[in-house]
Amino acid sequence: MELLTINNVWMMICTALVFFMHLGFSLLEIGLTRQKNTINILFKNVFIITIGLLLYCLVGFNLMYPGEFNGFLGFAGFGLSSPIVDGALDLSYNEGYTYWTDFLFQGMFAATAATIVSGAVAERIKIGPFMIFTVLYVGLVYPIAGSWKWGGGFLQTLETPFYDFAGSTLVHSVGGWAALVAVWLLGARIGKFKDGKAQAIPGHNLPLATAGVLILWLGWFGFNGGSVLSADPGLTSLTLVTTCLAAAAGGVVAMLVSGAMYKNLDLTMFLNGILGGLVGITAGADQMSPTDAILIGAIAGAIIVFAVAFVDKIKLDDPVGAIAVHLICGVWGTLAVGIFGALAGMDQFISQLIGVVSYAVFCIGTSFVILFALKKTMGIRVSEIEELEGLDGYEHGMDAYPDFRLNEH
Amino acid sequence: MELLTINNVWMMICTALVFFMHLGFSLLEIGLTRQKNTINILFKNVFIITIGLLLYCLVGFNLMYPGEFNGFLGFAGFGLSSPIVDGALDLSYNEGYTYWTDFLFQGMFAATAATIVSGAVAERIKIGPFMIFTVLYVGLVYPIAGSWKWGGGFLQTLETPFYDFAGSTLVHSVGGWAALVAVWLLGARIGKFKDGKAQAIPGHNLPLATAGVLILWLGWFGFNGGSVLSADPGLTSLTLVTTCLAAAAGGVVAMLVSGAMYKNLDLTMFLNGILGGLVGITAGADQMSPTDAILIGAIAGAIIVFAVAFVDKIKLDDPVGAIAVHLICGVWGTLAVGIFGALAGMDQFISQLIGVVSYAVFCIGTSFVILFALKKTMGIRVSEIEELEGLDGYEHGMDAYPDFRLNEH
Amino acid sequence: MELLTINNVWMMICTALVFFMHLGFSLLEIGLTRQKNTINILFKNVFIITIGLLLYCLVGFNLMYPGEFNGFLGFAGFGLSSPIVDGALDLSYNEGYTYWTDFLFQGMFAATAATIVSGAVAERIKIGPFMIFTVLYVGLVYPIAGSWKWGGGFLQTLETPFYDFAGSTLVHSVGGWAALVAVWLLGARIGKFKDGKAQAIPGHNLPLATAGVLILWLGWFGFNGGSVLSADPGLTSLTLVTTCLAAAAGGVVAMLVSGAMYKNLDLTMFLNGILGGLVGITAGADQMSPTDAILIGAIAGAIIVFAVAFVDKIKLDDPVGAIAVHLICGVWGTLAVGIFGALAGMDQFISQLIGVVSYAVFCIGTSFVILFALKKTMGIRVSEIEELEGLDGYEHGMDAYPDFRLNEH
Repeated sequence: MELLTINNVWMMICTALVFFMHLGFSLLEIGLTRQKNTINILFKNVFIITIGLLLYCLVGFNLMYPGEFNGFLGFAGFGLSSPIVDGALDLSYNEGYTYWTDFLFQGMFAATAATIVSGAVAERIKIGPFMIFTVLYVGLVYPIAGSWKWGGGFLQTLETPFYDFAGSTLVHSVGGWAALVAVWLLGARIGKFKDGKAQAIPGHNLPLATAGVLILWLGWFGFNGGSVLSADPGLTSLTLVTTCLAAAAGGVVAMLVSGAMYKNLDLTMFLNGILGGLVGITAGADQMSPTDAILIGAIAGAIIVFAVAFVDKIKLDDPVGAIAVHLICGVWGTLAVGIFGALAGMDQFISQLIGVVSYAVFCIGTSFVILFALKKTMGIRVSEIEELEGLDGYEHGMDAYPDFRLNEH
Repeated sequence: MELLTINNVWMMICTALVFFMHLGFSLLEIGLTRQKNTINILFKNVFIITIGLLLYCLVGFNLMYPGEFNGFLGFAGFGLSSPIVDGALDLSYNEGYTYWTDFLFQGMFAATAATIVSGAVAERIKIGPFMIFTVLYVGLVYPIAGSWKWGGGFLQTLETPFYDFAGSTLVHSVGGWAALVAVWLLGARIGKFKDGKAQAIPGHNLPLATAGVLILWLGWFGFNGGSVLSADPGLTSLTLVTTCLAAAAGGVVAMLVSGAMYKNLDLTMFLNGILGGLVGITAGADQMSPTDAILIGAIAGAIIVFAVAFVDKIKLDDPVGAIAVHLICGVWGTLAVGIFGALAGMDQFISQLIGVVSYAVFCIGTSFVILFALKKTMGIRVSEIEELEGLDGYEHGMDAYPDFRLNEH
Repeated sequence: MELLTINNVWMMICTALVFFMHLGFSLLEIGLTRQKNTINILFKNVFIITIGLLLYCLVGFNLMYPGEFNGFLGFAGFGLSSPIVDGALDLSYNEGYTYWTDFLFQGMFAATAATIVSGAVAERIKIGPFMIFTVLYVGLVYPIAGSWKWGGGFLQTLETPFYDFAGSTLVHSVGGWAALVAVWLLGARIGKFKDGKAQAIPGHNLPLATAGVLILWLGWFGFNGGSVLSADPGLTSLTLVTTCLAAAAGGVVAMLVSGAMYKNLDLTMFLNGILGGLVGITAGADQMSPTDAILIGAIAGAIIVFAVAFVDKIKLDDPVGAIAVHLICGVWGTLAVGIFGALAGMDQFISQLIGVVSYAVFCIGTSFVILFALKKTMGIRVSEIEELEGLDGYEHGMDAYPDFRLNEH
């Protein structure tokens, strides 16, 4: 009983921290984009967390954890169990922590996948189709994908099971692949590429972007720490150490590499390096030594610098660097489980590759079908005039800082 | 011992989260109001939390939890017990968690009531009288009102006890009734009503307002989760689930209803819908199934849209929607305990009504007496010139963004 | 096992809260300084937390907790232990909580010392030398200083041991002395002193500064609460109560005193009073009654008002008040342990004085050597043109709000 209680307390705290990541994502996204689209981005993020929880309650949870199933698709029925059986709270499905905590922790994760897409498609996607995409991707695609591993599906039952501790692949790449498809289908923002060269389109609020990243790092205490699924003292605390060291190494290395390449001290690259390190360690945070964690994070930090340049080079317009951070570092982190730490080995590496490819195929396929259908029917891109004048006025009739004034200096 | 320790850890965390709500309130209030009054609002909020804790230490705690008393008014004496008895920390008054945690958790709640008023009276109340009102309302009215139920008073000893799990009435309506009286006594801001029609007075920082709401939602994990008063795994986790589902449903429904009525996607309404759902579920968060919670939140979300319009219609000027959110949804949530969930029934509904009416009478009465006396003596409203030029300069000699500049574009 | 687990959960939460303080410091510092140096300050803060953790992993932890040593300087070797011994997680060094939590909690503290300096030297220090200083001060000076008390060194083995519960001296004064030296070596910002009189140089974002202080207060739940080094219910909860009461009293008294002296309601002074109260209670938060805590905080609040004026008077330019808050209130709090609470007495007071003087000598000495060497080699101050135009453009090639625009009103 005490152990159930303490596990449950830890998991509830982690749930709260993962919830708080949605503020981190919101601030990061608006900070790195232009002021005229701020309301739109905030609206999307608030929509994602609210509708995400409702959908996860309605179908997601039981798609992701269907119990016994064929390993590819199962469904345990609509809605949640009732808490009250014979007039008392039912604690029967409670290994380690309660059914309710289980639902809520996983529900907070579910919305994250769509949030990743939100940043990549910012400043030009129509709000209606994005909301439809969110409903389908968070309500169906994410939980089905999740069931393959965390629900006990075919990737879990490989001879050497695919390993993804907290979701470098199941969350970050799942969001990242959809971001890639969406960015490609949407096209670049007006003015992003001139004469074949990528132009910087500066955001409007770097302090909020920085706050967003530090909030995300805080949230990762819960994202990774809670993925132990208990309060096991050794595992949870080791996980926090590897998580923080990878974040630190990712940031410092990205700062150094971008400093060497571009001769400046770029705050945005530093921040993205931290996020890259966090995404990178996520797949194996409980399996690494501190040294492994620093190496994984450092490599992720270097990857970020090159990946951001590469995404620009292939003419994809990702305003917040979501593809570099969540997709590319997500794949890196997943493969790193086969290279570093307690599970390292060729068999594991191959299983990791199988996992990466499986998710790539499924997520690219489903997001393409959804987004292509939306493109051909409703259209997914706002009009040129709306894009130039800002989505806030057209889609929301609001401005982010309507009464902001300057003092005379 | 282990159980005491774990309960105490959970309650301390919840205390920290409720404390953090004061940042949420601050950001929400400044975000929805004009830049020229920002320092004033921040000052009020910082004053509320600091003086609130000191007053709760001096008199509030012992007014609210007087031990054996007549059910209407009791007082166990000034100040707190000394922690050290015979040279050792005293843990004797510790059922479930410690005396100190008990004080601090309840103290964080106390300040909230005044914060609710702060938003409603923003942009036109004199700071001096507001500070006096805060001292009296947080120091005396709130704890006396609280003693009637949480202190074991007459509403607790009804045949079918009045039920208010975490304060839809005891906190939110108690603040809300005072907000109503204050808004009425103060009158509307200059320019709010033109030719009998309410005019929008846009705030100055919607990103901070959104951050405020997400921080409040996070804080509600502690507000409701801590109101279990233990770390009981079933009750705490069920409470978090109902809290989050109600918030999500409130937001989505407010967005849909306001979208249908006004044909836009209004971020502010979405945010207020979330808050309405949170306030609504608060009275019975530990007694509801997920479905009940979604219904209570959804109804609260719809109420918000109509309530905001109604407050405008009756010519009350509430800049942040505090009356709609805290008073009207607070009443709704309290009554909902008689309609949904484990306690539903006519007897309970009547007890809920008795509670609502008792608090209405007491809070309207006391806040009227205090504010009317202040109005007739010091005056409660700033001068017209001060209101037009902003309270920051007149009351504080400061500006919120003194060095803010624009780049040349 | 249950107790280890619950202790560990509490300590992990406190670790997360202390981490979050870095966001608080960042927001406070940028809020109180000019917009043109915002990126620079954010960059410094992000650098401090990332490099700080890496250095603490590499050398700091084993310098600060060297095991048996001569009491002045010891080193247990580079890096951390490996978590995996004979294929299983090693929990052998786990009194109360795990080795990993121990490292991470202490690591979060380490970076704080440099952050304190960052605020004081803002708006005029060269980024390169500041980074070098950070590496040396966080990597070597802070942990060596820490070993004298928390590592079991000579201040711990005095007949009446020096007492510093959570770091009024070991963290805040250690940072504060370096801030003093740095401010003195750097000189004042252009325009700070005119005709021998200090001029106000207003910051650019008071809402973010206020958010920073409330986040710091939240973080102090972990800073002090975690310094119990267990989840002991009496000690942890008493500590939170004394911490919050001192913060509240500090704020209210600073507001009253500055109101009496300057006839305005100064938000910045209120905020610094809160911080002063927090720093002041930190040395003895677990040894004080609520009344003691209120007195210590109140005196700190009064000190702040005079200390800020005094720093101005002696022509030191400290843009955020770091010397008043962290150094002077840090010394006050350390001495207060000999005056108030369970340890009060002349012997204790003398030990406190010995501690204060020891740290003063060591920190002034080391920071002078480092900064003077940097001054004579690389130079530590930016050029006049850079200072006037802002460090963001020169050192980072970025602007904090590049796309910020105003609406037509």
